[in-house]
Amino acid sequence: MAQVHPFDLAIALAPQGENSYTGHTSPAYWNMVGPFGGISAGTMLNAVMQHPARLGEPVSLTINYASGLVQGPFGVSARPARTNRSTQHWMLEMVQVNQAGIEETVLTATVLTAARRSTWGTSESPMPAVPPARHMPVQAGFSKMEWLKRYDIRAVAGAMPRTWDGALHPEGSSLTQLWMRDEPPRPLDFCALAAYADIFYPRLYLRRASAVPVGTVSMTVYFHAGTALLQQCGDTPVLGQARGQMFRDGFFDQSAQLWSGSGDLLVTSSQIVYYKE
Amino acid sequence: MAQVHPFDLAIALAPQGENSYTGHTSPAYWNMVGPFGGISAGTMLNAVMQHPARLGEPVSLTINYASGLVQGPFGVSARPARTNRSTQHWMLEMVQVNQAGIEETVLTATVLTAARRSTWGTSESPMPAVPPARHMPVQAGFSKMEWLKRYDIRAVAGAMPRTWDGALHPEGSSLTQLWMRDEPPRPLDFCALAAYADIFYPRLYLRRASAVPVGTVSMTVYFHAGTALLQQCGDTPVLGQARGQMFRDGFFDQSAQLWSGSGDLLVTSSQIVYYKE
Repeated sequence: MAQVHPFDLAIALAPQGENSYTGHTSPAYWNMVGPFGGISAGTMLNAVMQHPARLGEPVSLTINYASGLVQGPFGVSARPARTNRSTQHWMLEMVQVNQAGIEETVLTATVLTAARRSTWGTSESPMPAVPPARHMPVQAGFSKMEWLKRYDIRAVAGAMPRTWDGALHPEGSSLTQLWMRDEPPRPLDFCALAAYADIFYPRLYLRRASAVPVGTVSMTVYFHAGTALLQQCGDTPVLGQARGQMFRDGFFDQSAQLWSGSGDLLVTSSQIVYYKE
Repeated sequence: MAQVHPFDLAIALAPQGENSYTGHTSPAYWNMVGPFGGISAGTMLNAVMQHPARLGEPVSLTINYASGLVQGPFGVSARPARTNRSTQHWMLEMVQVNQAGIEETVLTATVLTAARRSTWGTSESPMPAVPPARHMPVQAGFSKMEWLKRYDIRAVAGAMPRTWDGALHPEGSSLTQLWMRDEPPRPLDFCALAAYADIFYPRLYLRRASAVPVGTVSMTVYFHAGTALLQQCGDTPVLGQARGQMFRDGFFDQSAQLWSGSGDLLVTSSQIVYYKE
């Protein structure tokens, strides 16, 4: 019997009547004090992917991290707020029951799905010239976070600082480039890409090597690839690039791109991250 | 008696019980076949701004253009899905009654508000070196769209093509830089910035001078400035910059930045736009 990939176990949802699902947090994708944000993004998108009324493929996902999840079960509601001829708009919410027995919102999200049609196209974001993944060492041993063991990550530029002395980045750059794939390998799909978009460590840590508390509060993912292109990618590594534009008054942003190994831009993404001092 | 600015008239909402508002589309901000997308963004954000339960200031806004609005009244619901100690997550929806008398969703949105605190900060997106607004000619006479008369727009680079011959951009660039302010001038605030983020004409038209149908389907706006900084800006022009990263299979993205005249990065934004051929 084939083994189910840990990613598929983690994002699994059981239907509970119309527009409702239940799931359970996964220790395999645990971060410091809650699930890896990317697994939450994959889970929310999965509610849309397996919804019987879905039209087309994901084009856009925005997920808002309203509160930290605790270990245990959760509920997901996914409602098609508007269905047009070729596009569909979804509103989602994840809830958990708190210690007082009250259901509280922990995530909100909106998703756009659409029937893609072939058109004229072009890219203004060519893949940066970097060494292939197989030539780079696997990132290892620097973190106790369980979810990092579920990914094969190979930094090309802008690796996480190894000493936390508060040093400022010498060139004032928050640029990171890294190869990533699921570990063990898993064929690429939309839920995996949603998770990949959140795989970069906080840009603040690259600008200033100080381990202050941080947390993504909102992430937006645009999918520029359809199912056919993702199937061509198979389980080969994806190149990711991320940088911040602004760090001010407790929030910084991150812009990111993900390319297939053959240079197709698959995803552009942005997020805004809370930080404390 | 002081005249009310057309922008304030357009985004005005009347409370209708808890979490509900009514408003009306504004002919003053009419686009081709519906309202200017920026005025819809300003209107949705305004529901949060005037909500009695609001905590803090806007940090993030995602608006999804689910359907074209028709001229007439609309309802807005704005619900605080989660209120934390210093952050608050909102879910919003705008509805209009269709010809069959049925209420339909035309916009969805999520908003994050937060109490900003002063922290270490830095910018990696300095304002580009451009001539001051007063040295550039006002963009005029190229469009019949009413909403463009509500803005003073002065292109610095990447102006809209004047002939629609399908010509490809010679350098393959979708970069536009322009100065913008409300016309007549109006002190800068969050709702105005949300509208400014959608002021750029479609990037596709710059890459390929062909007037195919286009429409923004989702826009995300990150506010990097608080009230104090916006008040310092007053009603002086804001510099905007936009470019696309990917155009494929009926959708392209746009990344944008807005700077104050004195060089502070106020907003970073992204959107995904539908196009047809």
